[in-house]
Amino acid sequence: MWNRWNLNTMGRPLLLLGIDGGGTACRARLTDIDGNVRGEGAAGPANIRFGLKESFEAALQATNQALKQAGLALGDVDIVACLALAGASEPTNLAAARAIALPFRHALITTDAHAACVGAHGSKDGGIIVIGTGSVGLAVVGGNEYRVGGWGFPVSDEGSGAWLGSEAARRVLWAHDGRACWSELLTTIFQRFNDDPHAIVRWMGEARPRDFAALAPLVLGAASRGDPVACELAGLAAAHIDAIADRLVSCGATRLALAGGIAASIEPWLAAATRRHLVAAEGDALSGALEMARTQAGTAVEMHGIEAQR
Amino acid sequence: MWNRWNLNTMGRPLLLLGIDGGGTACRARLTDIDGNVRGEGAAGPANIRFGLKESFEAALQATNQALKQAGLALGDVDIVACLALAGASEPTNLAAARAIALPFRHALITTDAHAACVGAHGSKDGGIIVIGTGSVGLAVVGGNEYRVGGWGFPVSDEGSGAWLGSEAARRVLWAHDGRACWSELLTTIFQRFNDDPHAIVRWMGEARPRDFAALAPLVLGAASRGDPVACELAGLAAAHIDAIADRLVSCGATRLALAGGIAASIEPWLAAATRRHLVAAEGDALSGALEMARTQAGTAVEMHGIEAQR
Repeated sequence: MWNRWNLNTMGRPLLLLGIDGGGTACRARLTDIDGNVRGEGAAGPANIRFGLKESFEAALQATNQALKQAGLALGDVDIVACLALAGASEPTNLAAARAIALPFRHALITTDAHAACVGAHGSKDGGIIVIGTGSVGLAVVGGNEYRVGGWGFPVSDEGSGAWLGSEAARRVLWAHDGRACWSELLTTIFQRFNDDPHAIVRWMGEARPRDFAALAPLVLGAASRGDPVACELAGLAAAHIDAIADRLVSCGATRLALAGGIAASIEPWLAAATRRHLVAAEGDALSGALEMARTQAGTAVEMHGIEAQR
Repeated sequence: MWNRWNLNTMGRPLLLLGIDGGGTACRARLTDIDGNVRGEGAAGPANIRFGLKESFEAALQATNQALKQAGLALGDVDIVACLALAGASEPTNLAAARAIALPFRHALITTDAHAACVGAHGSKDGGIIVIGTGSVGLAVVGGNEYRVGGWGFPVSDEGSGAWLGSEAARRVLWAHDGRACWSELLTTIFQRFNDDPHAIVRWMGEARPRDFAALAPLVLGAASRGDPVACELAGLAAAHIDAIADRLVSCGATRLALAGGIAASIEPWLAAATRRHLVAAEGDALSGALEMARTQAGTAVEMHGIEAQR
C-alpha cells in the first residue's frame, strides 16, 4: 500500500487533485496518496467549448481554494492532477487544453463524463449518464469506450438542464402567443422576464447553456407538483435519457449509473426498461478524476523516480 | 391618380423603395410613384437581431444595386423607403434602427412579416405565415394586429429553415451514436461534415440561424423523395406551422397566405384544416413594403408640401 509520497527531486509532498468541470460549475478535491481529503474548492463554469481561459481559471480558482483549506499554497506541494472537463471530447479543444502549461507535476485532461464513469464503476464495466447543464452517456465495456450524446446545445444534450430550460422558454412564448395554455410554471417563468416576450428574446441572444439550465430547477419543481407543462417536459427529457440508456445497454453496459445536477429529479420519470439497469455509483466524477490522478502518479513513480516514503 | 412626383425643395424626382430584409438575404425594389419598377437589388442577411450594421449595410447595398440598374445614384433622387426587416419587432432593436440616419427623404421601418401581410392582403383583413430562415405568423383583423411565433431561434421559429436544419443535424448525431437509423438525408449531411461529429460541434458553435437554414433544402428535397427522417421532419415542421395557422384563424384571420423561402415546400405537408384557409398572396413582402412607402409618400405630400407633377 502507498502511504505518503515525496518527489525525490524537490522533496515536496505529493498530492492528488481531481477537478470536475461542468457547464455551470467546477469542483476541486485535493487528497493525499491514501485518499485522505485535504481540501475542496468550487468555482464557476469550466466547459472548454466556451473558452479555455475561463475553464482553466475556474479550475485554478477551485484548486487554490482547496489548497487554502489544506493550509498549503501551490509552491509548497507537487500535484498530480486529473482535470475532467466538459467539452474536452472535441479533439481541437482537447489539444489546445493539453498545450497549456499548468502549475502541476503532471496533469491529465479528460472529459467529465469519462471521470464520472470511472468514479461510478471503478475498473468494472459499466455506463454513466450525466444529466446536468448538458447530457451525455458513456460506457466502458471490455476496454472499449462508447459515447452517446453530449455533443452540445442546441443540436444535442437532449434531456439536459439546458434543453429543459430552452423548451420551457419556448412554451412560455407559445402561451403568450395563444398557441398553448398557460400553466403555473409558464406564468412563473414569464414573470421572471417581467411578462415581456422581447425580454426572452434579448436574454436568449446572449444565453449560454448554463443560462438555459438555470430554469431547469423551476421545471422539475413544478413537475413534482403536477404542473401539466412541467410534467410533459420532464417526460420528454426522460424519454431522451431513456434513448441514451437503451443505446448504452445495447453496447453491453448493463449497469448504468446516473450523475449530474438534475439526475435525481429526472430519475423518477425514466422508463422501467431504463430503471432496471440503474445501479448506485460507487463515486462521483471527482472521485473518478482522483482515481485517474492516482493511476497517473503510479506511472510517474516508474517514469520519474518518485519514491514513496512510509 | 398620381403620376410623377418631384420634391418642391430640391426639384429631384421622387422614387419609392421597398426593402425585404430576412435572416438569409435582403432584396430591394425601386419604383416610381405609379409602381413602375425602376430597379432591383439583392444582398446578404438583414436580420437586425444579429447586428444593425450588417443589416443596414445589406439594405444599402441592395438599394445601390437597384439605383444602378435604374441608371441613378443616391444623390440624383429623393427616396421614400420602407425597410421591412426581420428582428424589427424587438422594441430596443427597432428604436436603435429608427435612430440611424438613412440617405432617404423618409424611411419607415417595420418587420418583414408586417410587410408580407400588407403585400398579401392589401388593406383587407388576413394573415400571413412566413416560413423562411425563421418562421412567424401575423394577422391584421379589424385594425388589430396579431402576432404568433417568430421570436427567434433556438427557442422559437419552429418549422422554419433554421429549425429544420438544426433538427436534421440533431438526428445525424443520433444516427452516429447508434440512437437512431441512418437515412439518405442523414448520410448526405454527415458527409458534408467529413463524417466527423466534432465538425458538427465546431460548426454549431459559430452557426447562426441562416447557417442551420442552409441545410433545410436538403431536408425538403429528401422529403419529396420519401426519405423517412426527412418526411418525419417535414411533418413536424408542418405541425408547428399548423399551430400558428390555427391561432391566426382563431383571431379571425380566415384568409391565410404563405410566404418565405421554404413555404412552397412545406405547404404540401400542412393539415387540411390549415389548407382550407390558404389563399394566394396578392403580392410579396417587397410589394407590401412599397405599398407602405407609397402611403408614407402620400402623407409626406400633406406634411411637407411635396407636389405631384403630371
